[in-house]
Amino acid sequence: MELAEKVLAGEMRAVARAISYIENDHTQKEELIDTLYPHCGKAAVWGLTGPPGSGKSSLLDHIIDRERKRGSTVAVIAVDPSSPFSGGAILGDRLRMQKHATDSGVFIRSMASRGHLGGVAGATADVIKVLDAAGFDLIIIETIGVGQTEIDVVEMADVVLLLLVPGLGDEIQALKAGVMEIGDIFIINKSDRDDADKVRAEVEYVLGLKYTDDDDERNPVFMTSAKLNEGIDEMLAGVHAYFDKISNNGWLEQKRKKRIASEIKTILAAKIKNEVERYLREDNLLEHWVEQIYKGKRSPYAMINEKLQSFAWEYHSK
Amino acid sequence: MELAEKVLAGEMRAVARAISYIENDHTQKEELIDTLYPHCGKAAVWGLTGPPGSGKSSLLDHIIDRERKRGSTVAVIAVDPSSPFSGGAILGDRLRMQKHATDSGVFIRSMASRGHLGGVAGATADVIKVLDAAGFDLIIIETIGVGQTEIDVVEMADVVLLLLVPGLGDEIQALKAGVMEIGDIFIINKSDRDDADKVRAEVEYVLGLKYTDDDDERNPVFMTSAKLNEGIDEMLAGVHAYFDKISNNGWLEQKRKKRIASEIKTILAAKIKNEVERYLREDNLLEHWVEQIYKGKRSPYAMINEKLQSFAWEYHSK
Repeated sequence: MELAEKVLAGEMRAVARAISYIENDHTQKEELIDTLYPHCGKAAVWGLTGPPGSGKSSLLDHIIDRERKRGSTVAVIAVDPSSPFSGGAILGDRLRMQKHATDSGVFIRSMASRGHLGGVAGATADVIKVLDAAGFDLIIIETIGVGQTEIDVVEMADVVLLLLVPGLGDEIQALKAGVMEIGDIFIINKSDRDDADKVRAEVEYVLGLKYTDDDDERNPVFMTSAKLNEGIDEMLAGVHAYFDKISNNGWLEQKRKKRIASEIKTILAAKIKNEVERYLREDNLLEHWVEQIYKGKRSPYAMINEKLQSFAWEYHSK
Repeated sequence: MELAEKVLAGEMRAVARAISYIENDHTQKEELIDTLYPHCGKAAVWGLTGPPGSGKSSLLDHIIDRERKRGSTVAVIAVDPSSPFSGGAILGDRLRMQKHATDSGVFIRSMASRGHLGGVAGATADVIKVLDAAGFDLIIIETIGVGQTEIDVVEMADVVLLLLVPGLGDEIQALKAGVMEIGDIFIINKSDRDDADKVRAEVEYVLGLKYTDDDDERNPVFMTSAKLNEGIDEMLAGVHAYFDKISNNGWLEQKRKKRIASEIKTILAAKIKNEVERYLREDNLLEHWVEQIYKGKRSPYAMINEKLQSFAWEYHSK
C-alpha cells in the first residue's frame, strides 16, 4: 500500500493524509493500519489534560522545545471531541504552534473526529499508530475540554500528565478522586500564583489517601510556571524517570495491553452497531417501531425484547 | 409492580428509588419502565445547557420559582456525565437548591450515571419517563459541563434552552454553528454586563445565517440577568409560546419520534454490546487476542476481521 509506505518513510504529507483517512473512516483505513501495525510500539505516548485555562498550550510549547533539544522528534495531536463550546481553542493552539512550523521534527495536528466509527478514542488510537509508524519518538495527545470522552482519549497514552492550577473555582475544577485517577503525573501550573502551594497540598493529600502503603507507587507531583519558564526541566526529568520506571516494572506492558483490549471492544461494538443500523433500515423497521412506541402501545424495552428474542452472534473461525 | 405503582401515585421516595434503578441498571429496570410507559407523554421537557460560568444554576432557581407560581410541579435532573473536573458543581447546585427542599412540588436530583448500559443519554431518557409518569408538569434537564455527551443528553428534551454569557473567552465558548444547532431558545445571561449586547448581536447574526427564508423558524433570543432578576418573565413567556408553537405545528411530535428512534438504537447497541462482551469473556478469548496483538503479530482490525467472518444477527419474530 503506497500511503503506508510513505508514512513509514516519514513523509509528513502522507502522515497528514493517513490521519484524514482515520478521521473520515476511509474505506482503506483498516488496510492502512494493518500495514503500519507491525512497525508500531517504539514511540512514547504522553497524554496532557486539565481544565480549560490551566495553560496546557503554553506548557506544551515548552515541552516541545525541551524535547527537541534532547533530539526527540515530537508529534502533537490536539483532540477536540467536537465539543461545540471549545471550537475556538483549536484555532488558538494552531496559531500558537506556528513557531514550530518550520521545524520538520515537530508535527502538530488538531483532530475533531466525529466521523470515526469507534468514536474519538478509537480514532486517537489509530492516529497514535500512524505517528508511531512514521517514526516519531514522542507523541503527545492534548485534550481540549474536560468530559468523559476526553478521559477515554487521554487514557490511550502511556503516561498521563494532569495539569491543575490555582483559582479555577469549583465548577471547573474539583479535586475529587475521579480527577486523580486519570493522572499519572500531576503538574501544578502557574506556580507563581499565591495559592499554588495550597493546590499542591490538596493534591498531595488526595494522593496520600490513594496510596498509603507503598511510597513507590505514589504519583509524582511537580510545580511549573509556563509563563516564567520555571520548573519545566525538573518536571520533564520526572516524566522520563516515570516512563523508565513503568517500562521496567511491567506497568507499561499492562497499560498497553489494557488499551488493546479496549480497542478490540470498541472496534467490535462499532462494527456491530453498523450491522444493527443496516438491519433497522430494512423495510423501514425503525419507523414502524417508532410509530408503535410513540402511540404508547409499547415501551422501547418491551418493543425490542418482544421483537428480538435473541441476538445470535455467529462466530466463524477460519 | 409495586415500585411503579408508587411512582404513579407520585410518591417521591419511590421516584428517587426508581431513578436509582436506572442509574445502576437494576435487573427490574426494564419492567419498571415498561409499566410506567403508557402513563408518559404529559410533561414538558426542557433542556438547559451552556458553558461553565454561564449562571445556569442561578437562572434555574428563578425558573423554578416562576413555574411554581404558575402552579406547575417541577423536576430537575442535573446530569453530570462523570466529568471528573466538574465534580464540585453538583454539590454546589445541591446546596443552592436547598431553598426548594421544603416544597413538595419540586424534585431535584443530580445524576452521574456511568452504570447505565445506554450511557448517560439513555439513562436520562429513562429518568424522564419516571418523572413524567410521576406526574411532574415540567421536567428540566440541566447539564454540567459542555462535551458531546452533554449534547446527547440535552437533545432528549422537547425544547433546549442554550445559555450564553459575555466574556467567557474563546477557550470555553465559541459562537460556532455547532453551538447554535443544539439550542432552540437562546438566552444571553448576565445581561447587565457591558458586552452582553455584543453577544446578542453575534447570536442574531449566526441565527440569521441559519434561517434566511422563513422568519417563523427563527429561534427566539432573550436577555436575562439572574443576578438582578431581570428579563426572566419575558424569557419564560417566550419558552411557553415556543412550546405551544411546536406542539401545534408538528415539530414536537417529530422531535419526540426522533428521540424514540435514537433510544431504540441505543438500547439495541447496548444489548448487543453486552452479548459481545460475554462472548469475549468465554475461554479468555479477549486475553488471547490481546496477547497476539501486543506481540505485533496482527493489528486489531486484522485480528477481528480474520476471526469474525461475519456478524450474523438473528431476528426472530414471534
